[in-house]
Amino acid sequence: MIRVTRKLEFSAAHFYHNPDFSAEENRRVFGKCNNPHGHGHNYVLEVTVAGEPDPKTGMVLDLKELKEILDREVTQRMDHRHLNYEVPELAGKIPTCEELAKVLWRILEPKIHQGRLDRIRLYESPDLFVDCTADSAKDAR
Amino acid sequence: MIRVTRKLEFSAAHFYHNPDFSAEENRRVFGKCNNPHGHGHNYVLEVTVAGEPDPKTGMVLDLKELKEILDREVTQRMDHRHLNYEVPELAGKIPTCEELAKVLWRILEPKIHQGRLDRIRLYESPDLFVDCTADSAKDAR
Amino acid sequence: MIRVTRKLEFSAAHFYHNPDFSAEENRRVFGKCNNPHGHGHNYVLEVTVAGEPDPKTGMVLDLKELKEILDREVTQRMDHRHLNYEVPELAGKIPTCEELAKVLWRILEPKIHQGRLDRIRLYESPDLFVDCTADSAKDAR
Amino acid sequence: MIRVTRKLEFSAAHFYHNPDFSAEENRRVFGKCNNPHGHGHNYVLEVTVAGEPDPKTGMVLDLKELKEILDREVTQRMDHRHLNYEVPELAGKIPTCEELAKVLWRILEPKIHQGRLDRIRLYESPDLFVDCTADSAKDAR
Amino acid sequence: MIRVTRKLEFSAAHFYHNPDFSAEENRRVFGKCNNPHGHGHNYVLEVTVAGEPDPKTGMVLDLKELKEILDREVTQRMDHRHLNYEVPELAGKIPTCEELAKVLWRILEPKIHQGRLDRIRLYESPDLFVDCTADSAKDAR
Amino acid sequence: MIRVTRKLEFSAAHFYHNPDFSAEENRRVFGKCNNPHGHGHNYVLEVTVAGEPDPKTGMVLDLKELKEILDREVTQRMDHRHLNYEVPELAGKIPTCEELAKVLWRILEPKIHQGRLDRIRLYESPDLFVDCTADSAKDAR
Repeated sequence: MIRVTRKLEFSAAHFYHNPDFSAEENRRVFGKCNNPHGHGHNYVLEVTVAGEPDPKTGMVLDLKELKEILDREVTQRMDHRHLNYEVPELAGKIPTCEELAKVLWRILEPKIHQGRLDRIRLYESPDLFVDCTADSAKDAR
Repeated sequence: MIRVTRKLEFSAAHFYHNPDFSAEENRRVFGKCNNPHGHGHNYVLEVTVAGEPDPKTGMVLDLKELKEILDREVTQRMDHRHLNYEVPELAGKIPTCEELAKVLWRILEPKIHQGRLDRIRLYESPDLFVDCTADSAKDAR
Repeated sequence: MIRVTRKLEFSAAHFYHNPDFSAEENRRVFGKCNNPHGHGHNYVLEVTVAGEPDPKTGMVLDLKELKEILDREVTQRMDHRHLNYEVPELAGKIPTCEELAKVLWRILEPKIHQGRLDRIRLYESPDLFVDCTADSAKDAR
Repeated sequence: MIRVTRKLEFSAAHFYHNPDFSAEENRRVFGKCNNPHGHGHNYVLEVTVAGEPDPKTGMVLDLKELKEILDREVTQRMDHRHLNYEVPELAGKIPTCEELAKVLWRILEPKIHQGRLDRIRLYESPDLFVDCTADSAKDAR
Repeated sequence: MIRVTRKLEFSAAHFYHNPDFSAEENRRVFGKCNNPHGHGHNYVLEVTVAGEPDPKTGMVLDLKELKEILDREVTQRMDHRHLNYEVPELAGKIPTCEELAKVLWRILEPKIHQGRLDRIRLYESPDLFVDCTADSAKDAR
Repeated sequence: MIRVTRKLEFSAAHFYHNPDFSAEENRRVFGKCNNPHGHGHNYVLEVTVAGEPDPKTGMVLDLKELKEILDREVTQRMDHRHLNYEVPELAGKIPTCEELAKVLWRILEPKIHQGRLDRIRLYESPDLFVDCTADSAKDAR
């Protein structure tokens, strides 16, 4: 089994606010991320697919097809968007890197038909990233 | 003369909209950047100071002092902020990388007293950056 | 005046061979690059345009237009190509990083109509790059 | 157990063509990679060795020795080479990132005697890489 | 389960010398690293914590708290330090990347109370890094 | 005229101390860098040479020759060294990034015979670098 990883980037805005918390609790827990005007990031997404290379093509999956899936499901829906207002799957959630990675897993996993989705790594900044792997899949569904 | 460059990062949201344009013109000119919910970036700022190293310290300027200036004038004012609503110097302007670099020049230039500000490079993403140098200074003032 | 830089990547093959040199001279001068089977690189191209931001848009040039120019003139012509055989402007030249940068200057300079082309930086690898600037323009034409 | 990873880079050319496919099928399946002139990449290889550090040296393996192995088995055989014509282990295969990683596993695994080869990660470009791990080893042999 | 990784950097000096080896053996085994004047690195440390995101915050752990732990236990103790003389946990050991990663595991593991420490990756340079994971934990203790 | 830049890396230790300052002044001016045990960095050096490509080779200079110069004058003399004790050109100076760049200019400038040395950029860390250009040359001599 080989793992193939494709990386892409998208820019989005977000902020953190839990309506069940007091204003003060929101500030204490979320700090600068609680600013309701929002701020944003150049997210970097790594999508890893595991499978056996097809001897006829030498490939685990058709990368042109993967590019189309990522373009349709990630770039068109999340690039130059505000995560709090424009991604329905995040409604009622705090749009942290953790929650967004889980949403991306749930969106992409059923779309991958050659090989299977093995890991999603999402960078919010060069210094902070999260991994969602096959173990996290059950809960993520 | 030696040039010393310090790099820092901040995360901010923005969108582009010119109230003198029609809705259609705004969409045509600014594309995805016209989305009024905003989107965001991990901006990377390089601040270059030119001068002669002091033989007693081997340094063009005190980097601890530069760090304090950058912390106060850039991080505290722009990190985790929405550029359209929270940076008064951008009021009435389109908060592009070009305009933000000019604003940063105008803010930082009078604060540098050892050596002089020589260049500001501002990355909006790893694939897009602008330079504001001494030549651009006069207009920027 | 502000400088705006856009970065893009393309993959190409090449090898170095001067038909006026003996086989031995070719090997001595060009070393491993003389291998006639060719080898290749992920080239990274930075295109810098200098100009005044338009107050109505905050931009030196329309980046969507620049992207179209770069797609047509660089990606379509050089990505996944063999520089020795498929880029007519390099005919009769050794396709080094230096010569390719000069060719890219000559191709792109007349296509930029908002602002003017200020610099081309071409990376052959993360450890080797060349710059072609306005000073080199005259000879490059 | 600790994993130690050494990274190196090499430049090579390749193209994809399956002689059992029609010309049209080759173009459809392999797209731009089917260009018979070839194109190329700066490959980045990460070689990971797992083992217990020797208390006398604090090291899992002698890195000078690993460097010699990688120089002899990877750099001398693949750097500035055309993968379709000059790497016998790829004969009759499509030289994709997947197949090359498997070949590198088969070449390197028997050469590592302190610790054991744990993973090979091969980047074809900053945006595309494959992993070959201990699980893939059996098939790779 | 999600894995969250925070990256930080510190600069330190070190050299390798085993008092049980002869001078010649030290030179042969450790090469340039045996120079008693020492040399140094910009170490990059990735700390990965695994756990379930708290639905009230969307987070596996409070990143402000993690930053405080890393500041106190890593930056204050190791940044701008000489590993041979100023880190008591390395006394009597060769301060290789492997041994330092094990020390960092032992220091950080008991300090993480939300989620659990899952992996430590330590880069000595961009081309060399080690991983200490949950499997290595038992020995590391 | 084209500028060709080659990048290389070396690891060295240093600390800052001015014997004309009191202990307290040294601490105040140099902060953590005053620690007499020393600390260290992975320095990244970019060496830029300007000139006209030779039409027979397409090259400004023979890169194999440049590599030999850099190996002999930089790697062998500074890699895995302590800058305070092992680089005679820095004797009596504070081994800051500024002073080291000037020393590197003075060492390399007379060694470059094809083209001329145009710029030295020296990174002490990814966030701090200095440039020594032709303008700084006179003072540097």
